[in-house]
Amino acid sequence: MKKYTLLFLLLFAFSVPFRAAGPKYIFFFIGDGMGLNQVEAARQYNENMPDNLRKKMPFLSFPVQSVVTTFSASNRITDSAAAGTALATGEKTTNGTLGLNSKNRESIAKQFKKSGRKVGIITSVSIDHATPGAFYATQPERDMYYEIGLQGADSGFDFLGGSGLLQPQKAPDKINLYDYFRDNDYTICWGKNDYKYDKNFSGKILFLSNDSLYCDALKYSIDRKPEELSLLDLTECALHHLSQNSPKGFFVMIEGGKIDWASHSNDAATMIKETLDFSESIQCAYDFYLDHPRETLIIITADHETGGCILGNGTMDVNTELLQYQKMSGSEMSFYLEQVKKKHPGMTWTEMRELLSELTGLGKEVPLTLEEEARLMVSFQHWYQEDVSKSVRSLYSETNAFVSLAISILNEKAHISWASDNHSASQVPLFAIGEGASRFSGRLDNTDIPQRLREITRLK
Amino acid sequence: MKKYTLLFLLLFAFSVPFRAAGPKYIFFFIGDGMGLNQVEAARQYNENMPDNLRKKMPFLSFPVQSVVTTFSASNRITDSAAAGTALATGEKTTNGTLGLNSKNRESIAKQFKKSGRKVGIITSVSIDHATPGAFYATQPERDMYYEIGLQGADSGFDFLGGSGLLQPQKAPDKINLYDYFRDNDYTICWGKNDYKYDKNFSGKILFLSNDSLYCDALKYSIDRKPEELSLLDLTECALHHLSQNSPKGFFVMIEGGKIDWASHSNDAATMIKETLDFSESIQCAYDFYLDHPRETLIIITADHETGGCILGNGTMDVNTELLQYQKMSGSEMSFYLEQVKKKHPGMTWTEMRELLSELTGLGKEVPLTLEEEARLMVSFQHWYQEDVSKSVRSLYSETNAFVSLAISILNEKAHISWASDNHSASQVPLFAIGEGASRFSGRLDNTDIPQRLREITRLK
Repeated sequence: MKKYTLLFLLLFAFSVPFRAAGPKYIFFFIGDGMGLNQVEAARQYNENMPDNLRKKMPFLSFPVQSVVTTFSASNRITDSAAAGTALATGEKTTNGTLGLNSKNRESIAKQFKKSGRKVGIITSVSIDHATPGAFYATQPERDMYYEIGLQGADSGFDFLGGSGLLQPQKAPDKINLYDYFRDNDYTICWGKNDYKYDKNFSGKILFLSNDSLYCDALKYSIDRKPEELSLLDLTECALHHLSQNSPKGFFVMIEGGKIDWASHSNDAATMIKETLDFSESIQCAYDFYLDHPRETLIIITADHETGGCILGNGTMDVNTELLQYQKMSGSEMSFYLEQVKKKHPGMTWTEMRELLSELTGLGKEVPLTLEEEARLMVSFQHWYQEDVSKSVRSLYSETNAFVSLAISILNEKAHISWASDNHSASQVPLFAIGEGASRFSGRLDNTDIPQRLREITRLK
Repeated sequence: MKKYTLLFLLLFAFSVPFRAAGPKYIFFFIGDGMGLNQVEAARQYNENMPDNLRKKMPFLSFPVQSVVTTFSASNRITDSAAAGTALATGEKTTNGTLGLNSKNRESIAKQFKKSGRKVGIITSVSIDHATPGAFYATQPERDMYYEIGLQGADSGFDFLGGSGLLQPQKAPDKINLYDYFRDNDYTICWGKNDYKYDKNFSGKILFLSNDSLYCDALKYSIDRKPEELSLLDLTECALHHLSQNSPKGFFVMIEGGKIDWASHSNDAATMIKETLDFSESIQCAYDFYLDHPRETLIIITADHETGGCILGNGTMDVNTELLQYQKMSGSEMSFYLEQVKKKHPGMTWTEMRELLSELTGLGKEVPLTLEEEARLMVSFQHWYQEDVSKSVRSLYSETNAFVSLAISILNEKAHISWASDNHSASQVPLFAIGEGASRFSGRLDNTDIPQRLREITRLK
């Protein structure tokens, strides 16, 4: 008996420090603008799709699910810079500020790098944008893209991936950012065909889109062609690169950056497909987790909610399925219809109505009331025939007024409403699974997330 | 060593079954219509009040905080009857149906009663309303108030408390419900002064308001005078009654019923004060928990969200503090101003503007733009001088159009927006503390709550 008791006590005594070693592989997903209702809309939409079109949303059954407050040091409603800073450093800052905070706390990504882990930062928008930037840069203004880019190259992070760099050249006498990255021993991969699945390569990678038209962001998934770069492509390449030759593991931040953009535009179909696209990258991490369950931690959260999205606008129904008939994002549809207008200036309402049905389902799978059709007719006339309509601007896009009205009618019919074209103070969801996940249950503030990551990985 | 080992092993072996006995005292709070943003608005408002006006919101630091889906068997957006049924029985039903479900699962309140616990059901609305009714009644339609009342008297529950009974007399040849309750050995307490704090009394109590004008619901807390009945009064009396002579403990459901009503009216100030009033009853339960921490479980959730409430309407600010200047609920203000109109038919805009400032702060502590004042002037003229305005109806109230506009402007200035005057599909919060609370973490469906209560208390 004595022998077993000793063994038992020894096991007990050692189990605590063993657990405290924390996860070797850390995935930190940030759905920009992804509130609870963005996720719920995507879930409802997805559940009603036929099997062959349904995506996996593994995080919906993660054991830890909680809510997170997001206010900044200056405002009850945060912007992405202050929220990114809170999520990267564990300290609040003022809206617009990137990485800097009154306590001079460093980004956990930098700390992980110093502690010997490999570090990756990837996003579906530009790599110098607020959310990814907060993990490696410190700048008083989030739009100092050139300076943020310089700090990206200085970071020494193993994998930086996104659509592009917003300001590669600041002035003729300043070094070009691509050159600066190369001077810092980065290999630049231009698109997925340029990435080499080389087991022996352990250099640093800057991974950008090869389509210069989409330097500011990857295409929305609703508009993307199969050969075009996706967040999943970036995730797969990053995971390949980070997981090899990494005795101390890795930390990777993966941002779904355009859930926010679609929500700023109050474009529900595009938002839902962007959220489902983000899920595909999460699935990739989840597959990795299933292979390394005791060493992996996956955390998914958002920096803030965008648009004040609500499912329900007066009735007891929500018809997210109707959004399946929208074939393009509002911004792509605007671009396309402006081209149509140039080519076919004499188009009639009957012809446009047919085209609109193809693009949105309105008037076909989604029947219009006479009043709705009348509103669309008037808007068509102002835009197409009289050229007097003003386009609708949101933070990241300009939508033709006719398209904006069509999308707004489609959203109404799906019973999705939006409070504004800006962020809200709504709490955001957090989902976690794996080693250390239980530390992320309950009500959290966004600053708690990096603090607890530090605790479970023994960072200071 | 052997002796201690044996003791250790015995303690370990017995600790599991001891824990599994579950909580002796169970508080189940339901904030009707209380979504995440209703709670967040109340929190923000409360935090900015001076110390002497600030309420305690102990649940904000409860260790378990999660989110709950609320859809019904018939609709993605539930009504209170289907949601109440889910929360009472653990089974979904169709909107409008009370207590009945396809699996014939019984309410946990009935099961707790059979298992020997004392049971209390209290609410700030009528005791035959959907949420309280779901815990003791089974009816195909939620508005069969007489039949629901009969089942209340048949329940044998120890304490039923609310504002009143909506249909005490159905027909001359049918028994009066008050008589039926008395025939079933209920003592009826009319108001708080009628409740005797008698340690030896263990009979059944039906506790109703003594103000017949407020039979359908207790007054909103914003309108309540100190001597008028509150949910806290009901909670204190129920707790006194249920906790004495209760060797097997108790189960009490406490509904804050008018968070929903205020949200249906899109009246943010009234909603916030109703949520804070609900918190006072929670504080009462929390004090009890502090005295019996190992035997008590407190769960707080909502049946659904109402109104699609969002904090944020385009800017980065939320100014809930501005709502402190609203002195009456919209419905009370309508009633009051209609009386003013009768007494002073010749009132000028200047006079009304002064009165409106006193009632809402608009034009005084909350400055109006010229455009806002112009809208109010026109509305005043239509209502007061021309008598052509239509009142604004929501589910539980009719608000004068002028008052409705004033409240809507005040909400806009506080940066609170509403998607509709009806329920939404938003997930609702859950907060839990005490014995068994950990079983309520993660993402839940509303049906999981009674199922897990059954598990931890070994009900079948």
